[in-house]
Amino acid sequence: MKLSALLTSAGINIGICALLLSLYSILRKQPGNASVYFGRRLAEERSRRLNSFILERLVPSPSWMMKAWTYSEEEILSVAGLDAVVFIRIIVFSMRIFSISAVVCVFGVLPLNYFGQDMEHGDISSESLEVFTIGNVMSQSRWLWVHCLALYIITFSACILLYFEYRGIARLRLLHITRSAPNPSHFTVLVRAIPKSVEEGFNDSVKNFFMKYHASSYLTHQIIYRVGKVHKIMSKAGKACKKVAQLKGAVIDKKCLPLRYRCGFCGGTSNSFKLYHNELALSIKRDDLGDLDSCAKEKECAAAFVFFRTRYAAIVTSEVLQSSNPMYWVTDLAPEPHDVYWSNLWIPFRQLWFRKIAVLIASIVFMILFLIPVTFVQGLSHLEQLRQIFPFLDGLLKQTFAIEIVTGYLPSVILQLFLYIVPPVMLLFSSVEGSISHSGRKKSACWKVLYFTIWNVFFVNVFSGSVISQLNVISSPKEIPAQLAKAVPSQATFFITYVLTSGWASLSSEVMQLFGLIWNFIRRHIFGWKDDPASVPSFPYHTEVPKVLLFGLLGFTCSVLAPLILPFLLVYFFLGYVVYRNQILNVYCTRYETGGQMWPIMHNTTIFSLVLAQIIAIGVFGIKESPTSSGFTILLVIFTLLFNEYCRQRFYPIFKKFSAQDLIEMDDEDERFGRLEEIHEQLHAAYCQFQSKTPESHHRDPEGENSAASRDDDGNSSKDDKNGAVHPTFGVLPVSRVRQALISLSFLAKMEGMNSRT
Amino acid sequence: MKLSALLTSAGINIGICALLLSLYSILRKQPGNASVYFGRRLAEERSRRLNSFILERLVPSPSWMMKAWTYSEEEILSVAGLDAVVFIRIIVFSMRIFSISAVVCVFGVLPLNYFGQDMEHGDISSESLEVFTIGNVMSQSRWLWVHCLALYIITFSACILLYFEYRGIARLRLLHITRSAPNPSHFTVLVRAIPKSVEEGFNDSVKNFFMKYHASSYLTHQIIYRVGKVHKIMSKAGKACKKVAQLKGAVIDKKCLPLRYRCGFCGGTSNSFKLYHNELALSIKRDDLGDLDSCAKEKECAAAFVFFRTRYAAIVTSEVLQSSNPMYWVTDLAPEPHDVYWSNLWIPFRQLWFRKIAVLIASIVFMILFLIPVTFVQGLSHLEQLRQIFPFLDGLLKQTFAIEIVTGYLPSVILQLFLYIVPPVMLLFSSVEGSISHSGRKKSACWKVLYFTIWNVFFVNVFSGSVISQLNVISSPKEIPAQLAKAVPSQATFFITYVLTSGWASLSSEVMQLFGLIWNFIRRHIFGWKDDPASVPSFPYHTEVPKVLLFGLLGFTCSVLAPLILPFLLVYFFLGYVVYRNQILNVYCTRYETGGQMWPIMHNTTIFSLVLAQIIAIGVFGIKESPTSSGFTILLVIFTLLFNEYCRQRFYPIFKKFSAQDLIEMDDEDERFGRLEEIHEQLHAAYCQFQSKTPESHHRDPEGENSAASRDDDGNSSKDDKNGAVHPTFGVLPVSRVRQALISLSFLAKMEGMNSRT
Repeated sequence: MKLSALLTSAGINIGICALLLSLYSILRKQPGNASVYFGRRLAEERSRRLNSFILERLVPSPSWMMKAWTYSEEEILSVAGLDAVVFIRIIVFSMRIFSISAVVCVFGVLPLNYFGQDMEHGDISSESLEVFTIGNVMSQSRWLWVHCLALYIITFSACILLYFEYRGIARLRLLHITRSAPNPSHFTVLVRAIPKSVEEGFNDSVKNFFMKYHASSYLTHQIIYRVGKVHKIMSKAGKACKKVAQLKGAVIDKKCLPLRYRCGFCGGTSNSFKLYHNELALSIKRDDLGDLDSCAKEKECAAAFVFFRTRYAAIVTSEVLQSSNPMYWVTDLAPEPHDVYWSNLWIPFRQLWFRKIAVLIASIVFMILFLIPVTFVQGLSHLEQLRQIFPFLDGLLKQTFAIEIVTGYLPSVILQLFLYIVPPVMLLFSSVEGSISHSGRKKSACWKVLYFTIWNVFFVNVFSGSVISQLNVISSPKEIPAQLAKAVPSQATFFITYVLTSGWASLSSEVMQLFGLIWNFIRRHIFGWKDDPASVPSFPYHTEVPKVLLFGLLGFTCSVLAPLILPFLLVYFFLGYVVYRNQILNVYCTRYETGGQMWPIMHNTTIFSLVLAQIIAIGVFGIKESPTSSGFTILLVIFTLLFNEYCRQRFYPIFKKFSAQDLIEMDDEDERFGRLEEIHEQLHAAYCQFQSKTPESHHRDPEGENSAASRDDDGNSSKDDKNGAVHPTFGVLPVSRVRQALISLSFLAKMEGMNSRT
Repeated sequence: MKLSALLTSAGINIGICALLLSLYSILRKQPGNASVYFGRRLAEERSRRLNSFILERLVPSPSWMMKAWTYSEEEILSVAGLDAVVFIRIIVFSMRIFSISAVVCVFGVLPLNYFGQDMEHGDISSESLEVFTIGNVMSQSRWLWVHCLALYIITFSACILLYFEYRGIARLRLLHITRSAPNPSHFTVLVRAIPKSVEEGFNDSVKNFFMKYHASSYLTHQIIYRVGKVHKIMSKAGKACKKVAQLKGAVIDKKCLPLRYRCGFCGGTSNSFKLYHNELALSIKRDDLGDLDSCAKEKECAAAFVFFRTRYAAIVTSEVLQSSNPMYWVTDLAPEPHDVYWSNLWIPFRQLWFRKIAVLIASIVFMILFLIPVTFVQGLSHLEQLRQIFPFLDGLLKQTFAIEIVTGYLPSVILQLFLYIVPPVMLLFSSVEGSISHSGRKKSACWKVLYFTIWNVFFVNVFSGSVISQLNVISSPKEIPAQLAKAVPSQATFFITYVLTSGWASLSSEVMQLFGLIWNFIRRHIFGWKDDPASVPSFPYHTEVPKVLLFGLLGFTCSVLAPLILPFLLVYFFLGYVVYRNQILNVYCTRYETGGQMWPIMHNTTIFSLVLAQIIAIGVFGIKESPTSSGFTILLVIFTLLFNEYCRQRFYPIFKKFSAQDLIEMDDEDERFGRLEEIHEQLHAAYCQFQSKTPESHHRDPEGENSAASRDDDGNSSKDDKNGAVHPTFGVLPVSRVRQALISLSFLAKMEGMNSRT
């Protein structure tokens, strides 16, 4: 590939990006798309709306970028929580380190590469890209120390930045724990594997155990019930009723006049309908709750939430081995009420270790064998087979242009389609694994997708595709540095175009929300459904974090070898910074928090990338016969690993455990202000397995943080998780009060509906 | 090698063993050797002695074997503690599993191997040993399923036995914790990395912290002092004085008349002298303690023992993260008072992670590069070089016999000498690592020696010696099964002779205590020193456990491939059973306990051996072109790993943590019987850094368990650990009372000494 071709490609991609972003800036101003582009804001400020037609709506404007750029970190923290901040910090870190790398490598390394061999340089734009990589430097060149020095500068900068970021985020996490409103999860322990006894049920068993051994701190408990078939059928029936009500509501709603609102946002739902539909749904749910109560007694399962008087007591109980048989009375700190993954709680504890191993094996097999079916299906897309399957395409497939499209793009389209199923599959794996919380499930899926991406994008490309040759490489670890050293510089061109196409395009498609846009159109205009604030998605950390980290990996590994990648990467990160801030502020809801647990993932991956880059450099220096540089790079590897170990000692425990000091101080403070009693009273209601989901509770209360009730964000595999109401102290209206309000309001709603029909 | 040669070799070894054991049975009856062969008993029953000459003393007898065999497990438990029982259980497990293997393989597999090929079988005694291995079975033989079945039987038997043993030992460990006398370590937490503050010293800092956060359970604490140069010089001076006193004592002692005692044991020390010498030593120590008190204030270090009111409070504090900075206030449960490794306590906590990594790297380098210097030194022992260095040997080295000896035995003697330095080096590494307890240090050394042994005996031999070829094998992991499959059956002959020579010989030399015998002779007859009960060694688990586990590994890997090894192995284990029981009961002292923590090491190693055997079998079945057997063996590998994972879940936590249930019950019981107050009063005195070692405290109190005070058992690297007195409730006389008794008794002793001189 020549430089001019690269620049052309970059130009085309810049054009496409600019086009899509302009399109976005228009589309976002259309009221009909508000539920796609302002889901979070709608859920928060559902009464405001704007529907008037003004010319400005059709003019693209970059103002959204400015807005996204100018928000402060505190605002993001208060609006979207710590995880969002951590995600933004990941991008900020990347921006910083690759700015430094770009300066060092473009001005230091690039000229050396370019003038690395005694050759005539023609017109620079027609140079092959190979000329800009380390491949162009002569063997035994006395300038290789510059590459080594650049690697040193990049590594030390990265370590210093990582250290300060880790420290900053650890501090944020501690603040998040200590400064937030009283959190029921801090008082609650999830006990699993309650031993079966003949004379007493689980209920008495739990009570007796904790009264005996933790009498001074034990408050109360709540057995978890196994949700049976009956409940599932009932809830499906309830859903059907809800749909009917929604359709009715859509008819009723037509006359509601839109309110004007100056800031350009619009809300899609009519309160009058909503209340009507809620009332229907609620009454159905209430019936099915009655049924359940009668049969639930038999379906107690060997797990319970146990509530304690103080946070310290809860943390102690969760961390200390309870019984001399480690398979009984297994305790974990409970997730936050919205975060509980109810359908996994009844999994017998004895199954868990087995499930984990099974999922681990399945993930590895999926990861390694992924490309085999893909290649097979891609093979099917060859021209002859297409002609056989679709004879009517015969004429079309004879044109050169069509042939180019089909052979050139179809395989990569198929690959992309297959890649789209990876995150859901990994999320499914994580559910099967038995995570007790949504956030834990997403974190686990994040790791899996990350491994998958790094393997299937980086290593498979470097080792040029075929599964057999990959396995050969694994089976001779000693040759890996040399193999990588040969492969990476020659694959650098591919990675540059990958950043250009896949990276930039993924940002544009993220901001465009094409799928959401189409689904919104179909829903509104074909099914005629109304917007449902409950359907606002939460941020897909498990797809976006691996993506950003993959580009970081490409940056580190290519920076010294092929510095041309860095400008393109910088554009990606700067654009990503704006896009993701915009999406976090406008589109996605925050339903649950991991409390910044994405950062250790980021840290470890970055260390991995650094070490990988260094190992590749060792290989390259070996090929170029520069033992001094190799030696110094080996020192660098040792330094990086020691740094990582230090960070693991210094910061990682903060992300794994709570400290006694903080919790005791929080307990003392609550006791001094007399809040502890109040908290105790409300603990039991916080975790409620069979309370129906009241749509009101999805809407943000004025305090803003903990309001949205427990819902899942991928349609599959968590059907019966859609329950759990949250108590006022912890952010949401009490269920009884909600019901009263609903009943009284629903009467008005029915009246209104009748009026509109008459 | 032919079968007859093997049998001859076995005959010779049996003869040597019988000779040595007979010699032992004579030597043990000589009163002069009592301190070598009855160290533990002497320390316990020091007043009894027997010195009369009877003819029986010169007649070998197997009665000691009967005695060792007939002791029950309860007796060993009460005499030598849980670790000894665990060690014996390791041997019992090996006896059982290899008895099963022997039956299955000798009657099932061996005939198949022997008649595996269509060949004329001549005289069985002149057959090559190769004929008895799986190498003699034809490719694609339809009898290979028998080998597979044998592997199945061995694996399942091993797993069942392992499961029940693990369960039994877990139960013993729980009993050991709950039934033993109140243990000060259960109430004590070792706090390290106490943050420095300007306004208050460590003492106030600790007090304030625990009074603030653990007010209800905190009792008191004790700062650890850094032992300075002054103290070291003083203690050396003290030692010199002690030596002088000892020499004097030896003169004084000559007239003491031996007492008669019927059971054949004899004690070597005279009480009269001992007390005199103790008094001298004590007064010296007391002086140097005074000096220390004045300068110690400045040498407080950032570590302390903190005492709690209940066991549960201590365990909670030790397990919960204390501070939001994980590098401060690091808590661990304290080791038992005798077990504290004082000289490691002042290591700054921030160094520990670095030390651990450094030791890890050093161990790996030592392990892999061990053979290079050995081979080099062995090379020096060639005839020509010997002749150059020692010209006077020229005549001798021309005789054929001498040449055979020098070339045949000298290299292996050199290897053996080098091997002897391995356990001390590993123990030194474990000290540098920063273990806080003697038992932890020994456990860590045990792991290191185990890795070393398996690598340098098994793998190096299999891959035939040269370091380069070993590294080549590591660097292509895919070929390992095939490589092993080729190498192991052909090396089986070597392993059989290894069991015969090294295995049996190590038992004989263990029981003979050659080094101890010689040292005892030199000490008594050349230096004229008296026996010192304090010098009784403790059981060298870090050398013996790896040895026994190595033979287990050889057994598992060779059983199906070369079943001839099994009878020899069984002899080793049965003999080992008798020998080690005898040694535990008579020779070694128990000073500290790991509480059965050797068992997880044994379990994991056995699983490793099983899986290794299965992998080798897969390789062999691959070479013999029997895909069915390979497939079934892969299933077996998966089953074994799953079984291991289950055991890890089910039992391992018991060996790592204490359970809240047990501790709370113990606390409650103590409180009910009013013992808690008494325990509290004595806690502080239990851990005493600067209390001088009173020799009385080495002698067993009537209850027998916790008496011997803290001493190290390898001369190097723990000079200032020889202190620590133990409190009465925990098993030993209170220091004040000991001193009183000493002062009054020493007066009598002086009188007696004067009488004997006059």
